[in-house]
Amino acid sequence: MGIKFDLLKESQDSKARLGLIHTPHGDIETPIFMPVGTRATVKAMTPEEVKGLGAQIILSNTYHLYLKPGHELVKDAGGLHKFMNWDGPILTDSGGFQVFSLGDLRKIKEEGVEFRSHIDGSKHFLSPEKSIEIQNALGSDIMMAFDECAPYPSSYEYVKQSMERTTRWAKRCKDYHKDWDRQGLFGIVQGGMYKDLREISAKALVEMDFPGYAIGGLSVGEPKEMMCDILDFTTPILPKNKPRYLMGVGTPDYLFEAVIRGIDMADCVLPTRIARNGTVMTSKGKLVIRNGKYAKDFNPLDDECDCYACKNYSRAYIRHLFNVDEILGARLATTHNLRFLIKLMENIRQAIKEDRLMEYRSEFYEKFGYTE
Amino acid sequence: MGIKFDLLKESQDSKARLGLIHTPHGDIETPIFMPVGTRATVKAMTPEEVKGLGAQIILSNTYHLYLKPGHELVKDAGGLHKFMNWDGPILTDSGGFQVFSLGDLRKIKEEGVEFRSHIDGSKHFLSPEKSIEIQNALGSDIMMAFDECAPYPSSYEYVKQSMERTTRWAKRCKDYHKDWDRQGLFGIVQGGMYKDLREISAKALVEMDFPGYAIGGLSVGEPKEMMCDILDFTTPILPKNKPRYLMGVGTPDYLFEAVIRGIDMADCVLPTRIARNGTVMTSKGKLVIRNGKYAKDFNPLDDECDCYACKNYSRAYIRHLFNVDEILGARLATTHNLRFLIKLMENIRQAIKEDRLMEYRSEFYEKFGYTE
Repeated sequence: MGIKFDLLKESQDSKARLGLIHTPHGDIETPIFMPVGTRATVKAMTPEEVKGLGAQIILSNTYHLYLKPGHELVKDAGGLHKFMNWDGPILTDSGGFQVFSLGDLRKIKEEGVEFRSHIDGSKHFLSPEKSIEIQNALGSDIMMAFDECAPYPSSYEYVKQSMERTTRWAKRCKDYHKDWDRQGLFGIVQGGMYKDLREISAKALVEMDFPGYAIGGLSVGEPKEMMCDILDFTTPILPKNKPRYLMGVGTPDYLFEAVIRGIDMADCVLPTRIARNGTVMTSKGKLVIRNGKYAKDFNPLDDECDCYACKNYSRAYIRHLFNVDEILGARLATTHNLRFLIKLMENIRQAIKEDRLMEYRSEFYEKFGYTE
Repeated sequence: MGIKFDLLKESQDSKARLGLIHTPHGDIETPIFMPVGTRATVKAMTPEEVKGLGAQIILSNTYHLYLKPGHELVKDAGGLHKFMNWDGPILTDSGGFQVFSLGDLRKIKEEGVEFRSHIDGSKHFLSPEKSIEIQNALGSDIMMAFDECAPYPSSYEYVKQSMERTTRWAKRCKDYHKDWDRQGLFGIVQGGMYKDLREISAKALVEMDFPGYAIGGLSVGEPKEMMCDILDFTTPILPKNKPRYLMGVGTPDYLFEAVIRGIDMADCVLPTRIARNGTVMTSKGKLVIRNGKYAKDFNPLDDECDCYACKNYSRAYIRHLFNVDEILGARLATTHNLRFLIKLMENIRQAIKEDRLMEYRSEFYEKFGYTE
């Protein structure tokens, strides 16, 4: 069956779309935010809890799982779903982003990337074929092609060469992958902040006919307007009948801006990472729970939230947990932040259904304290 | 209503008893193991999870809550039950054990103990009256009298003076406490390893007529036989119609040895502490999950256990979580260790009911690898 996409509705007031992605482990309503479980666990959470928050798909990480515990072990365990006790859809990234982030520890060649482990310095080699081999062993529903995400800023010449190599690597990934019924594979559009390169990349990948397309190399430090501009330009080049995934985006404003430009999927470690540091997102903006002003605040984190943390605990209690380094603090803040973004996407889907997404966006921004 | 105890059955083959403690927040079946939530949270767990494991009462800590977040704050939150979202019985210790453990940071006087906070060095004073005032503010169902737990080994003269002061302090605690319907108060028998001092302590406290009695100053480094000997001697001095609580005991063998000597309640941080380091108790003995031999072991931690961790995850997965420092590892190991001890106590109660506790103890010891 592989990966299929039903486009259910196109928005009247923006390029936003409602859709349904069919995967071997169930359907995903889009637009969707995907929680990240880098090392085969969404940090601090059980899979049942993640599902209970309304998550329909989670991400996991090829680079990290290749190093620990090793993809062969995960395969022996019956695949990633069974290993980590998550029976819904899983998307794995290609490991490209992580090995390129290693800086001095990696060397790029046409064949692939030589790198040293950030854990023990041991030597490894990741190529398009190897990335697919690992992702085949993990058994994710949606695999990503092995790409280079060029840093921002980068010269035109660098981004051009990098994008062209990424295109050749996408072809090698596609050729290497065999069982398309069991696992889908998305191509990743690169090209940095250069529209002509984005166009070349997108068209070449569309030509290869992947079941979905990611837009990589955005939200890497460029101004928000630049990201919006590149999205405005790029999504129309991608086919309407395939899902579009913006990588690494997880703040409410970036999610809104992506969705109204035709993005269907997004992921980010941000909500879980800031949660573990005690920062939560609420309907009235961000809140740093260690702040002394919450010491005797017996209100919930967000009085409009329906999550377990907000229904059962006060800011004062959660602040206490963070002040004495209790694990439950990280759990409650993670629960809240994930629910906050998942609920936001539920609201966004409902607003698209009712053709009032731009109105909902304005209301949300005003309350949250964003300036448009 | 306060604290009442029904003695339901006395064992045929040992001094073990079955009982029921009535508290303002519900009944407790004895013998019972009580999980510890030092800082108003059982580490890594939600209250619902702790209850789901079969826990009927939890402990919390006067010293720690006095320092952070402060007992007045907990009182303003509506008491400890509401603050931490646990609606079952709570027992609080007196803070005595913690301030005496501060060593050079504390000075003992007849009036009470002057000490410096282990967190910021600030000066504080804890006395019998202050301890009860704090525990009144916390609102626990069972409070403990402010005592000194003499270290092992200590001279006869030291233990004698310390025990006599503890007796005077118990009286002051009892006199200071007012609302016996809302909160009970247990006296703590001291006297170190000296039987005549244990007898004097126990008799003086029984004279004061507390609704329950703890035996303190055991499991503090003395040989197990010595603890058993003191228990053998002490429990018969305590009234049959009051619950008996052995403080700081949480390994299966110590629990068995305590129960067969007439102990009804026990607590210890051990099962949760070793869990966070990756050590779990199983029906076949202890298991250190980081050990390389579990790398490809797809069996549960304990194939006889009914806990969430054992029903859903392999040793290989849990080992992976510990190897990459994931919070879920601590959660799963804690879940298992608590369930292991709670289930053990369920089995012990059933064995008492069926008059085959000594038989069950032998079976358990053989399988676990203890020598009697």
